[in-house]
Amino acid sequence: MSSTTSAIGIFDSGIGGLTVAKSVMEQLPNENIIYFGDTARVPYGIKSEETIQKYASQITRFLRDREVKMIIIACNTVSAVAAEAVSKKADDIPVMNVISAGTEAAIASGLKNIGVIGTLATIGSGAYEQALKHHDKNLIVRSKACPLMVPLAEEGWTDNDVAMQTLDHYLAPFKSNGVEAIILGCTHYPLFKPALNRYFSRKLALIDSADSVAQMAKQYLQNHNLQNCSDKPGEIDCHVSDRPQRFKELAGRFLGRPLSEIRVHDAPEFP
Amino acid sequence: MSSTTSAIGIFDSGIGGLTVAKSVMEQLPNENIIYFGDTARVPYGIKSEETIQKYASQITRFLRDREVKMIIIACNTVSAVAAEAVSKKADDIPVMNVISAGTEAAIASGLKNIGVIGTLATIGSGAYEQALKHHDKNLIVRSKACPLMVPLAEEGWTDNDVAMQTLDHYLAPFKSNGVEAIILGCTHYPLFKPALNRYFSRKLALIDSADSVAQMAKQYLQNHNLQNCSDKPGEIDCHVSDRPQRFKELAGRFLGRPLSEIRVHDAPEFP
Repeated sequence: MSSTTSAIGIFDSGIGGLTVAKSVMEQLPNENIIYFGDTARVPYGIKSEETIQKYASQITRFLRDREVKMIIIACNTVSAVAAEAVSKKADDIPVMNVISAGTEAAIASGLKNIGVIGTLATIGSGAYEQALKHHDKNLIVRSKACPLMVPLAEEGWTDNDVAMQTLDHYLAPFKSNGVEAIILGCTHYPLFKPALNRYFSRKLALIDSADSVAQMAKQYLQNHNLQNCSDKPGEIDCHVSDRPQRFKELAGRFLGRPLSEIRVHDAPEFP
Repeated sequence: MSSTTSAIGIFDSGIGGLTVAKSVMEQLPNENIIYFGDTARVPYGIKSEETIQKYASQITRFLRDREVKMIIIACNTVSAVAAEAVSKKADDIPVMNVISAGTEAAIASGLKNIGVIGTLATIGSGAYEQALKHHDKNLIVRSKACPLMVPLAEEGWTDNDVAMQTLDHYLAPFKSNGVEAIILGCTHYPLFKPALNRYFSRKLALIDSADSVAQMAKQYLQNHNLQNCSDKPGEIDCHVSDRPQRFKELAGRFLGRPLSEIRVHDAPEFP
């Protein structure tokens, strides 16, 4: 049975969801977090919907067994194709996801010409576009899959010549098409914010789904009196299905804080 | 029980091993091939040794059950950390692997200053370097992990400005260090041959592990009277553990022949 001191469960196919954990820690500094990164089976984006639904359900059970008070789907691919499977498996635990949150933030911006960038799977699913048009069918939505941005982020090349040229290959059409805001529809993409701002000369709004879902979570906890009222800073417990050492090496870049604060556990039941 | 008309089994973590299948089809045009691509669990390079050994053993059993007369490990990561596990599971079926083959070709070249490029996992294992030094401890071996080259190949960016700049980031030291030959230690890298030849002004020998292992396989079959003497062109049967459609879409680029000749089967027992 969860309580106000229970953790928030956050999961992703791998390490990228730590950008969501980072936003949650900034906005809800007293909340404990249980993070699950499915590093044995990453990336999800190249897998079939059935496979992703199966994996997401397994992780939901893992988090439910740990009595989390909320589940945040940090992975855009899971949000696109398995949000329903997660909600079903979560029983009465509230579930947030980055696509709903990013969409709401884009709508709230009032801007009408929206670009969406993400992995092949996220863009191929059309999930952001459908959600945006469902809110306002007059929105102009342009989507672009940017598959190289995840490996660039993991290589640490988020602001060098290769990164800038890659952005140009993918995003030049957004410049000429009058796009006013871009939804960063992949957990790795917040690392490119400085490069994106430079590329677009700060003329476009960057909508960060990680920030958006953290705001949504905060609102929900306030509205339902579920905040952790402890005055102790929250802690983060990371569980991964493979290669905890590699996760630890990269985690700092995504989480923006010293590695010493990250505990990484092996989750031998996965895969 | 296998016979001369039995297929050659080739496996890889995903689609890249089709460059090996391509070389085998060129050098042994009458041989049938059974290819297994573990698309549900790709990439292997970020997984632990134990996990890779487990997966490779499962696939070996899959190929053994189909009575192949030879198994070729097309995956450098598997060759580096699980060649022994595969040989054990293969019983008396001969097993070839790209690292042994690439190493032998490098030694046979007589060149003394060798560069090795591959994924983080392959380079991290030190397998090529150890194998080269085992043959000749006076060789100079310089290794460089090039993690962006696989996603570039899958994006089809093997010869554009981003590709050239990426090569420059990774390989500039090879120019100044007098490297005479480069082992392409990843199945995706043969797609960069034109770009690499341009980058090095054709001054370096490119040693393609895919070609090397196909030559080794041919030699073995000849020496042991195991060639398929049929005058019918060989056929290739591809099995994948997930997303056969995506595999089919990309296969042509790696295999260099029309998609209509590729049969893709789902392998539901994986993962």
